[in-house]
Amino acid sequence: MSGREPIPPTVAWRRGRVRLIDQRALPERLRFLDCATVGEVRAAITGLAVRGAPALGATGAYGVALAARTLATDQAVRRACARLRDARPTAVNLAHGVDTVLAAYERGGPRAALTAAREYAEHDVRTNRVLGGHGAALVPTGARVLTHCNAGALACVGYGTAIGVIRAAAERGRRPSVWVDETRPVLQGARLTAWELGRLGIPHTLVVDGAAGWLMARGEVDLVVVGADRVAANGDVANKVGTYPLAVLARRHRVPFVVAAPTATIDLATPDGDAIEVEERSPDEIVRVGTSRVAPRATVAANPAFDVTPAALVGALVTEHGVVSRPGRRALARLARVARSR
Amino acid sequence: MSGREPIPPTVAWRRGRVRLIDQRALPERLRFLDCATVGEVRAAITGLAVRGAPALGATGAYGVALAARTLATDQAVRRACARLRDARPTAVNLAHGVDTVLAAYERGGPRAALTAAREYAEHDVRTNRVLGGHGAALVPTGARVLTHCNAGALACVGYGTAIGVIRAAAERGRRPSVWVDETRPVLQGARLTAWELGRLGIPHTLVVDGAAGWLMARGEVDLVVVGADRVAANGDVANKVGTYPLAVLARRHRVPFVVAAPTATIDLATPDGDAIEVEERSPDEIVRVGTSRVAPRATVAANPAFDVTPAALVGALVTEHGVVSRPGRRALARLARVARSR
Repeated sequence: MSGREPIPPTVAWRRGRVRLIDQRALPERLRFLDCATVGEVRAAITGLAVRGAPALGATGAYGVALAARTLATDQAVRRACARLRDARPTAVNLAHGVDTVLAAYERGGPRAALTAAREYAEHDVRTNRVLGGHGAALVPTGARVLTHCNAGALACVGYGTAIGVIRAAAERGRRPSVWVDETRPVLQGARLTAWELGRLGIPHTLVVDGAAGWLMARGEVDLVVVGADRVAANGDVANKVGTYPLAVLARRHRVPFVVAAPTATIDLATPDGDAIEVEERSPDEIVRVGTSRVAPRATVAANPAFDVTPAALVGALVTEHGVVSRPGRRALARLARVARSR
Repeated sequence: MSGREPIPPTVAWRRGRVRLIDQRALPERLRFLDCATVGEVRAAITGLAVRGAPALGATGAYGVALAARTLATDQAVRRACARLRDARPTAVNLAHGVDTVLAAYERGGPRAALTAAREYAEHDVRTNRVLGGHGAALVPTGARVLTHCNAGALACVGYGTAIGVIRAAAERGRRPSVWVDETRPVLQGARLTAWELGRLGIPHTLVVDGAAGWLMARGEVDLVVVGADRVAANGDVANKVGTYPLAVLARRHRVPFVVAAPTATIDLATPDGDAIEVEERSPDEIVRVGTSRVAPRATVAANPAFDVTPAALVGALVTEHGVVSRPGRRALARLARVARSR
């Protein structure tokens, strides 16, 4: 574990470009990607230079500001928005970020778009700090918390959602430690979550995804906290593939299963998990690791990037407007109303 | 999928040496390792050049034959046996293979030891064919079978246990297809099972370990078949880490969960899963993949190689003496008696 080092913003506006941490280079190097065109922003999204639902929202937001600044006509800006919106299908935040800033553009042009994008990004960090504070109450002192994928600062503009909860607990003196699922195929746990926790000085241990069951069976997990790419109106949660097995195991072992996500992740237009499109990504993510090919050349692979955890397995949903125990249709509709009214 | 190509024996005796398929070189190259000393055999076991409970049994058996041939005194042979026996702690077959051939040596010297080792290896292949035939009855026509790790020819001397069941079903015209869990950290599914199934011409699709829950939730798995490293007297099953989550998910989705293992894997001296020593392997297996380092340099990893599936989650145990539904203490004791009497 290293000492405490700051984590720069995942997404920012810098001299007329969208600056992203290139997450493909982590943990080896902290490298930035300065996107000068909407095409470059879109390629960064599809290529996973930036990922994580809230970060995708902010990237979409800044992407529209970039479109507004670089494209000549309203029509071209709208076309660019459509291309950004469908760069990845599962996270609702991407469309949310794009639509928020497009609306500002339609009202006030490029300058209004940039202001709206900046507000969107700043709002993300504020939101996560508040969310983390609410969630910290669910973390007992000395808790061994298991998390999957990366729902940290790198999945947002800053601070993080699931890791935000852990971080807020650490800031409140709860001394949590973390089991980090490596999270195949893209290894966001090994590459990103371990890197963040190292920078934050929070003790953590990396495990393969298949080990979570054994850890729970031995009583070594006190809490599971994950993020979400989309929460349907009934409380079903789409998140990184491998999340659903954790929820099933947590239920069996009576370990609280907590989802941490800003209200922007709740999509009332999606009635339930069956209506969530689960992105199928390239088999190359599975058959190659780094420069090594790990399967025979002719091998076919299936690569669903997400899975859906039914609401019934979610013990609590932590948002910036508070914690909802056993989230269902009514509670989520109320939450969305509260979020809209602020 | 390639056409049908033979798979050479995993373990054999060749010109006074123990010849192993070096499984670390697969799937890229089919390379052999000719061990001239017990130390080389032991290093092949600890380094995972050979793995899989039945293959470890045969390697232990030939290792004793090699010791008997190369070492000067009975004492030295016995010391070599002790070193082979504890090369890996979880698979009971290793000790079984060593002890069987050591007993032959004590009775009849080096020549008897080699004869016993050869019989042990040939018995493995015969056993697996019979086991596969029994298990094939559990595979419906067109079944989509999920398997974890490699319980194939490469985990045995030949034919395979879990893959033996799938293979026997294919030979009987049942046209099974296979979901292959890649099986982190060592990727035996991606590297070995996919390679074997390709050689056998059995259709298969590789997935990450975390995807099994989503596949089951979508009704895309008809059967789970896995091998075992040790079956305790009460029916608890130690197998590659990640097996237990599959058993929990299979129960939730009413998918039959089947363990295929020769009776030599049953250890009546181990009362239950709590008494099974689960090997903790090097964190390097997790933080490095091929030549790539996938976690920050300071990251600590925990690497339990196995987990324990409670007997209550095992729908059937397939052995060379038939299929035991819901295996428990009594049925296993009976099975062990039958096995001893033949």
